[in-house]
Amino acid sequence: MHSLTGKLFTEVEADVLREIICNRRDVRGNRFLDRPLEEVVVRQLLDAALHAPSVGFSQPWEFVLIRDAEIKRQVKDSYTEENQKALSFFGEEKQAVYARLKLEGIVEAPLNIAVFYKPSGKPVLGQTSMEEVGLYSVVCAVQNMWLMARALNIGIGWVSILDPDKVKQILKAPLENKLVAYLCVGYTDGFYLKPELELLEWEKRKAAEAAVIYERYVISP
Amino acid sequence: MHSLTGKLFTEVEADVLREIICNRRDVRGNRFLDRPLEEVVVRQLLDAALHAPSVGFSQPWEFVLIRDAEIKRQVKDSYTEENQKALSFFGEEKQAVYARLKLEGIVEAPLNIAVFYKPSGKPVLGQTSMEEVGLYSVVCAVQNMWLMARALNIGIGWVSILDPDKVKQILKAPLENKLVAYLCVGYTDGFYLKPELELLEWEKRKAAEAAVIYERYVISP
Repeated sequence: MHSLTGKLFTEVEADVLREIICNRRDVRGNRFLDRPLEEVVVRQLLDAALHAPSVGFSQPWEFVLIRDAEIKRQVKDSYTEENQKALSFFGEEKQAVYARLKLEGIVEAPLNIAVFYKPSGKPVLGQTSMEEVGLYSVVCAVQNMWLMARALNIGIGWVSILDPDKVKQILKAPLENKLVAYLCVGYTDGFYLKPELELLEWEKRKAAEAAVIYERYVISP
Repeated sequence: MHSLTGKLFTEVEADVLREIICNRRDVRGNRFLDRPLEEVVVRQLLDAALHAPSVGFSQPWEFVLIRDAEIKRQVKDSYTEENQKALSFFGEEKQAVYARLKLEGIVEAPLNIAVFYKPSGKPVLGQTSMEEVGLYSVVCAVQNMWLMARALNIGIGWVSILDPDKVKQILKAPLENKLVAYLCVGYTDGFYLKPELELLEWEKRKAAEAAVIYERYVISP
């Protein structure tokens, strides 16, 4: 069998990762700078994505790099429509806050990346019982890219207020592809110290204890 | 509005992240050491997970920490059953290879973590058009944990050859919870330099060009 000679990381290196993780933010259009991304930087983001884990090493991802203003405008139209619908989900008080939020940077960001899941069309090792893990591989790629962007002091915002069918039409994506994420990418004038929705008191950070269960759930009688 | 004073990372720090990303592996039972994980280490893994991005800052995750041998045995039974079924998906030649692969470390790993999506029960900002992004937030938490584990020289293996309903029953999980990932976590005797399925030539690494599209898909006439 192949030798095991993987690198051992130091405590200092683990701390670097911890800092990158804790300083990553969702960046919106009011923060992006009008400055193009160098090709070498885009390559580093993609390289991080392409080294994500994938079920059965299936690498079921496709990345559409969008700089064209007309395509962005069409995607923005879908956002505007979906965001209008979204308002009605919230109570009166939250609606007023919601309407003031800047939630995307489709037009402002120099680069948009539409991230698709592409089914492999043959059985995939590890995907035979839980088919959705193919999608999850693509999400791991997005998270790798997001962290790498933060380490390069580049902002990413994930826009999910979109009609995925419309985005597929705009991008002429194959029928079998599934839109997983739509990312706005660019240099920014800075990063907030905490998530914006936490600063705005839209939601509170949950206590760690609320998310951790030991051994199994206890059913109340 | 709140000030923007987020940390600026250096090139050296970005390189550390790149190395962690490229050296992360899926670790199986033939590599785990029989050595318990210190509580402080488990806390660091959870802390990385809890700082993942989540749609609308909903933090829709729950982590079940499993050390109990009887629970592990029951989960392993589900793996064995599903893995037997999985064989039939592959052609004769691949079946022989598949049957020899060690694909999980449920019993060998000192710690298992079942990761669930817990729907919030109220409308979530950003989740009104693509409901699945709640699940994707949980996957981002898994990937954060996986990278932090690698930085701490700890192995994680993601087991997806399981019946999620059986795992939910074993863990007495609430009906509304959805199993996203089942992780085996522990110290290891090393990390392979490349993904195991690449070394075994089960799948090839795809060329970057195959995964990148510019502006939009071109439909052949």
